[in-house]
Amino acid sequence: MRAIDEARKLYQGELVTVSRPDCLRLLALSRIGRVACNSAGGPLVVPVNGRSHGTDVYYRVREGSHLATALREGHASYEIDGFDDFHQVGWSVLVRGRVSWIASDELPEHRSEWPSPWAGGKRDIWVRLQGDDIDGRRLLP
Amino acid sequence: MRAIDEARKLYQGELVTVSRPDCLRLLALSRIGRVACNSAGGPLVVPVNGRSHGTDVYYRVREGSHLATALREGHASYEIDGFDDFHQVGWSVLVRGRVSWIASDELPEHRSEWPSPWAGGKRDIWVRLQGDDIDGRRLLP
Repeated sequence: MRAIDEARKLYQGELVTVSRPDCLRLLALSRIGRVACNSAGGPLVVPVNGRSHGTDVYYRVREGSHLATALREGHASYEIDGFDDFHQVGWSVLVRGRVSWIASDELPEHRSEWPSPWAGGKRDIWVRLQGDDIDGRRLLP
Repeated sequence: MRAIDEARKLYQGELVTVSRPDCLRLLALSRIGRVACNSAGGPLVVPVNGRSHGTDVYYRVREGSHLATALREGHASYEIDGFDDFHQVGWSVLVRGRVSWIASDELPEHRSEWPSPWAGGKRDIWVRLQGDDIDGRRLLP
């Protein structure tokens, strides 16, 4: 066991910062992430189908849902990540900023159906998170 | 395009609640998740190697790290999830409760090296999140 523990330490990864351009590239490629907003008993964290446009992230919520009820305006975060269990490496990007409900014609490039939710139900509230603060980290093998 | 949009609507999944026993099973199997804690500009959300024991989640942090600085005591959340991009389905479990730094001999079953972080560096602060509130959702195909 001691040998295994020592081997594991040898292979433990190094955590480094992801550059801002790479954070934006990872956001642009991503179609799913987690919206987090402050609440009294610890943040509410909910997966959503999000799409980014520059530093902004767009997603849709259903009226009366947890997320719609918890957060109409104010600060929120959007997190994306990826892991490789075998190599024990991964990366994450965190976007923090202000959220606002927008009209569908405020979506970039008039993408009226975009972002497209996997979940059924009438998700007709469009939300924009303005990314004031974007940073990422990755674990090198 | 209209036909594709209509087909997509036909296949949109239904979001259902995950039972508490299933939430605990998913937590027990999981080795990585995201700790979220409230902060002024939106929650801080950071992936960690976590391990659950019943309704509690344990993880380790490095002194001086973002997470250690932001949260010594107080409320936090731990989120795990899994997605299948092709079938456009997924699930998530959210644990909310109080966090406290503990001594290594307060770990369950005297697992002095447990949970085991992928990242290098001296992660010698053990943290316990007491899961007061656990719920999960999954998207049926």
